[in-house]
Amino acid sequence: MKDFYEELEDSLSSGAGAQVPHPQEKIAPWGETRIVGKALPRVDAYERVSGAAEYTYDVILPGMLYAATLRCPHAHAMVKSVDTSAAEKMPGVVSVLTGKSPGADIPWYGGRPAQSKLFDPHCRYEGDEVAAVAAQNPYQAWDAIKAIKVEYEKLPFVIDEETALKSDAPKLHEGGNTTGAPRTSQRGDVAKGFAEADVVLEETFVTDIQIHVPMETHGSVVKWDGDKVTIWDSTQGVYDGVLIPFARTMGMPINNVRAICRYFGGGFGSKLELSKNTVIAALMARRTGRPVKLMLSREESLLAVGNRPSAKMTLKAGVKKDGTLTALQLTSIATCGAYSGGASVGFQVGELYKCPNVQISETTFYINAGRARAFRAPGFPTGNWCLEQMMDMLAEKIGMDPVDFRLKNFTEVSQSRKNLPYSSAGLKQCLIEGSQAFGWKEARSAKKSGGHIRRGFGMAAGMWQGGAGGPPYTAEIRMFNDGGVIIKTGAMDIGTGTKTAACMVAAEELGMPLENIRIENADTAVTPYAQNSGGSMTLPGLVPAVRRGAWLVKRQLFEWAAESLKVPADTLEFQNNAVVVRGSPDKRAVIQELMRAHGVNDVIGIGNRDPNPSDKVTMPFAAHFAEVEVNTRTGEVKVVRLLAANESGRVINRKTFDNQVFGGMTMGLGYALTEKRVLDRQTGKMCNVNLHDYKVPTSLDVPADHRVIAIDPKDTECNIVGCKGLGEPAHVPTASSIANAVYDAVGVRPTRGPIEPKTILELLSKKTRG
Amino acid sequence: MKDFYEELEDSLSSGAGAQVPHPQEKIAPWGETRIVGKALPRVDAYERVSGAAEYTYDVILPGMLYAATLRCPHAHAMVKSVDTSAAEKMPGVVSVLTGKSPGADIPWYGGRPAQSKLFDPHCRYEGDEVAAVAAQNPYQAWDAIKAIKVEYEKLPFVIDEETALKSDAPKLHEGGNTTGAPRTSQRGDVAKGFAEADVVLEETFVTDIQIHVPMETHGSVVKWDGDKVTIWDSTQGVYDGVLIPFARTMGMPINNVRAICRYFGGGFGSKLELSKNTVIAALMARRTGRPVKLMLSREESLLAVGNRPSAKMTLKAGVKKDGTLTALQLTSIATCGAYSGGASVGFQVGELYKCPNVQISETTFYINAGRARAFRAPGFPTGNWCLEQMMDMLAEKIGMDPVDFRLKNFTEVSQSRKNLPYSSAGLKQCLIEGSQAFGWKEARSAKKSGGHIRRGFGMAAGMWQGGAGGPPYTAEIRMFNDGGVIIKTGAMDIGTGTKTAACMVAAEELGMPLENIRIENADTAVTPYAQNSGGSMTLPGLVPAVRRGAWLVKRQLFEWAAESLKVPADTLEFQNNAVVVRGSPDKRAVIQELMRAHGVNDVIGIGNRDPNPSDKVTMPFAAHFAEVEVNTRTGEVKVVRLLAANESGRVINRKTFDNQVFGGMTMGLGYALTEKRVLDRQTGKMCNVNLHDYKVPTSLDVPADHRVIAIDPKDTECNIVGCKGLGEPAHVPTASSIANAVYDAVGVRPTRGPIEPKTILELLSKKTRG
Repeated sequence: MKDFYEELEDSLSSGAGAQVPHPQEKIAPWGETRIVGKALPRVDAYERVSGAAEYTYDVILPGMLYAATLRCPHAHAMVKSVDTSAAEKMPGVVSVLTGKSPGADIPWYGGRPAQSKLFDPHCRYEGDEVAAVAAQNPYQAWDAIKAIKVEYEKLPFVIDEETALKSDAPKLHEGGNTTGAPRTSQRGDVAKGFAEADVVLEETFVTDIQIHVPMETHGSVVKWDGDKVTIWDSTQGVYDGVLIPFARTMGMPINNVRAICRYFGGGFGSKLELSKNTVIAALMARRTGRPVKLMLSREESLLAVGNRPSAKMTLKAGVKKDGTLTALQLTSIATCGAYSGGASVGFQVGELYKCPNVQISETTFYINAGRARAFRAPGFPTGNWCLEQMMDMLAEKIGMDPVDFRLKNFTEVSQSRKNLPYSSAGLKQCLIEGSQAFGWKEARSAKKSGGHIRRGFGMAAGMWQGGAGGPPYTAEIRMFNDGGVIIKTGAMDIGTGTKTAACMVAAEELGMPLENIRIENADTAVTPYAQNSGGSMTLPGLVPAVRRGAWLVKRQLFEWAAESLKVPADTLEFQNNAVVVRGSPDKRAVIQELMRAHGVNDVIGIGNRDPNPSDKVTMPFAAHFAEVEVNTRTGEVKVVRLLAANESGRVINRKTFDNQVFGGMTMGLGYALTEKRVLDRQTGKMCNVNLHDYKVPTSLDVPADHRVIAIDPKDTECNIVGCKGLGEPAHVPTASSIANAVYDAVGVRPTRGPIEPKTILELLSKKTRG
Repeated sequence: MKDFYEELEDSLSSGAGAQVPHPQEKIAPWGETRIVGKALPRVDAYERVSGAAEYTYDVILPGMLYAATLRCPHAHAMVKSVDTSAAEKMPGVVSVLTGKSPGADIPWYGGRPAQSKLFDPHCRYEGDEVAAVAAQNPYQAWDAIKAIKVEYEKLPFVIDEETALKSDAPKLHEGGNTTGAPRTSQRGDVAKGFAEADVVLEETFVTDIQIHVPMETHGSVVKWDGDKVTIWDSTQGVYDGVLIPFARTMGMPINNVRAICRYFGGGFGSKLELSKNTVIAALMARRTGRPVKLMLSREESLLAVGNRPSAKMTLKAGVKKDGTLTALQLTSIATCGAYSGGASVGFQVGELYKCPNVQISETTFYINAGRARAFRAPGFPTGNWCLEQMMDMLAEKIGMDPVDFRLKNFTEVSQSRKNLPYSSAGLKQCLIEGSQAFGWKEARSAKKSGGHIRRGFGMAAGMWQGGAGGPPYTAEIRMFNDGGVIIKTGAMDIGTGTKTAACMVAAEELGMPLENIRIENADTAVTPYAQNSGGSMTLPGLVPAVRRGAWLVKRQLFEWAAESLKVPADTLEFQNNAVVVRGSPDKRAVIQELMRAHGVNDVIGIGNRDPNPSDKVTMPFAAHFAEVEVNTRTGEVKVVRLLAANESGRVINRKTFDNQVFGGMTMGLGYALTEKRVLDRQTGKMCNVNLHDYKVPTSLDVPADHRVIAIDPKDTECNIVGCKGLGEPAHVPTASSIANAVYDAVGVRPTRGPIEPKTILELLSKKTRG
């Protein structure tokens, strides 16, 4: 079983998305738009700020029980026995579940082949599930958890890749500690490339574990009605994240499962797959005959729901004096925690710039720690960390400006995908407009030195392999007889403004005010199929289907009106509750009357997502710029300015666009400076299982001076709306731009991330001594 | 503004339904059916019996308040002042609402022109709304209601039609005490008809008020999110019963309103229109910023939510010796309570039998009592009470068997609708098969006399003017990639099994097992338009749309499979998750692969209801048979046997068919024997405002020996499923059949209903004296 991003990579590399035949009538690109592109508040802003929005955490059902999970406290251990007798007698406790409970012996697919069980006696990290309790309230459940007596046999553990690759290292899985043979790819001949180069550099870069910190932790509420089950889940996909894998795990018909997630408090990739909490809640709900809510605590969230793997990447690069890249060779060793597969850090290295000779080899090791899950552009901020620092190193060596160097190696055709042209290749404009807006040349040249606070300017480019989106996606557009429109989609709004964008696209296509459009989403019983929200594919996957559905509705109504008014359909437009002749609004057909005359009170358009073009590659691009101050006495780095130039095709909503890029930069700032998982070498246990010690950026860490430039390449090729994904490319190059700025400030290169004060001080001290 | 049944009558008499042009491809009638026609349990039986089903009463929202209503305790009064100051200070009270509260001065349409306000100072019956309270719990709300001080000016009142028609009677409305000019209709020449007759009889029949007693009382839960509102309402129609009239009453865009009613505890016509409780809850929810629940008490339900009007009907009828009806002349005076319009009792008199000369005149009076609302076949059980007793009187006079007499006057063409033929005219078979199954002739001839317990056998025929159903109705059928199907419809399941029938029809059309089909209904945000559930039109309105939608889905999948398997589409069928060649199941195309190849994961068919044929009239028919024992000492009537022969086109589910007819007969039994509203002549107040004194039949009142005969006329004309409505014709002739049986038992005719013991004793005593 492949995970979401592995399947994405497969489909992208095979071009599967492009081969889907689905003949639909052609729709021309929009000319001038009325609504799309504006900066508008979210359609559900009121619900979100007033508390009316119902998140999974808010679901309260009559008779509902609260569950908690007992997790292994050791990095590596074997459960010898579980004694639940005391817990069962505690006040409020209704049910205690272990791996030996009937029906709970369920194989679990952490990544590829079944590696674990729902409650696996072989606990491979601090956090593996051992038992669960359902009680009248959450406090009783947690008290009972503490009363469960478990006898563990502690096993030797391994928590870093260097130890993991030793032959005598403790083994996590039968197949050993690697997830498989090294993943390799190549084109051209790197030896030849290095021979042609005037300069060849090699450097090793290291990144640490970044943990997903969604505001809303993972969790589920599950209710059975006979053999049918309803699941409210904090998920990035009610269909592929819950409905289908849950039905498969439980051996149930899909049609007996309903999954709902109307509001969602963040996931960043950690909620793309079925989680154990969902199945545990379901088993306890079935046993007790009562709804069960199981929300993870913040500590559990930090321990057990996912992270971005660490990597140790050695990159060798060759360049000619004129700035032409000749070869790139990457060897990467990554860890993925106890179970998952992990993502490629190499793709971007072979794709972002024109380079004929590329060789990549990546190996991933299991360690006794919380497992990796997909994390916002899996592999890309990591790969970017080495590629974009190396690009600066090369530029410096050949005496070229970093922006000019990147422009020199800009490509309009995909290096990895058969040299097919990009549907739009906005990187060039990102570099040009971004550097202009940032005042790049002026800032670099006017830089003063001296004093213990050193100022530096850095930049980095980046891209994301997803972002095209594609079929299947079904959007239903229903117009009622007063002209009111409801969109139905199974898609999540994972915080990015998808619902607002869908409403804007429908309003645009229908020529109606946004107030006419309402949206219902993410309920498998009533909203049609949508893919998981991940891979920056929701917007470009969904809104073309929305446009198609709206177009079908419009065509039907205009056809009826044309017949009734005896005018050509292309002279018509909607106006309030009527179809009118453009420019002659008194020539009108009231929608209610048109519908009545055709025996209906609503018209529904089923919009299917068109296939992507087979002769183009669609990817989004970005260039981020950073200004930092480095305190050479304390080693502290302060980011004083960030500017992002992002190209993701057409901007649907300028406000959510900016917000999303700002969020991506903020996450990149954490990746660059503060976020890392700390494991205790003595016990293998995680030290910073709280938000005090695991440091995500707060308002005070974010530079007040931040700015987002939206590059619109007028992409008419990618899909019928012209948009590409944004969530991930918004995050990819930020950390690297900060690292490059640090180098610019103090002349030492922080190859190891995050850039902690002690790292800076060590590097400075080495430099001084050196 | 016309009410539901008035609009129905209009559309039927104008043939509007038949004129809707909606060209859809022809679908042939089913041949042999696999599922349709079987006796199957309801698809939601588990939810209903387990308590999992969420009725409006079950809706509990965080922070929800409970409301109660202060009602005028006088039959007729003017509110001089309302002092809410004490109530406002009571524990838990959050808001007190009166007609003087901002935004509460809302005109209210009880029937035609605006006759009242939401809180009208002119209270026209005991039960008119005066004020409302919202509090933390219902007990606090009721306590506060009692603390509101109201100064009333009591007015003279009128509670019967005889007083109401006097010129010096207290006036309820500015226009006087009649709802308008007498409603008249005629064909032929009754004078000529009476002249041609061998026998002419005239008799006056009286019926009393029957009150709706739904298990779930009226009520609403209303929640505002900014300017959007969600209403959970115990309603017979989320669209026409709530969404549209609520938006109109509040002056809101329809699209900002969402109405939901997934489970429903009975209405019988009393929940077809927007109720004051919905608007009161909405106003209080908006004022308080919290959800408000307002469920009526049983007492309020009996007082204020509706009833079947009483009528005093004088029917004159002429017949030839051979049994040919020559003329029918009806004059009816009815009451409708304080506000509503009331329904025609005359239609059936002019429609059920072949009769060339008919004259009808009906007048309705306002009285100071709870208003009439549509009640299961409005007017028809009442009209049937006089027509079917008169038929027996005529039969006796000319010495013909009552069944033979009715068969003699049987008609295959609609008497009122331009003599158009019925799409199916099953009355003949109802009479023949019903009397055979009942053992009619044998029972009547073998009857013994003597003793104080007299046995009698009676029958009555009946029909219903609705029951055709028609557009608009939209049903959405979605097949997911595993072959699972979800039906979406805005239609209510008002207890009749609509959801089950819809699933059976979809399963039949798709050739799939019923387990594959799931249904979601009655939520205006996610389910498409459906009409109010009333008029016995839901099944024949909805299921043809369901069949159409399923047919569209099947056609799409079969087309794809035919292409893939290179066979003609008409050789294909569904089998589990695949399309297979009939008889060669190894030639198969897996649905998931078919969908994937066409870029979708679900296929949705939008089924619109086809228009009805313009050259046919569709109505359902019934003949009911009763066996009674009359105790000549006490006057008690015991119904010992009931048999119904009902013809409503194709039977979809034999179990819900039988249940519905049984329910109709039971309600008819109450109408015949026990149900009546008792008003106190001194005060005008209702005496029997509880279920002890207002007597609906219980299990002990229903004869254990009851039987339902389903006549299937193989109607291929009415619609593409062939079914007609059942709910109302199931109720129409029962009471009359019991009255006729009483006459057969004791030789006195109970022209006044209900047939109370004292009535029997009076009649027997008059007969003895006479």
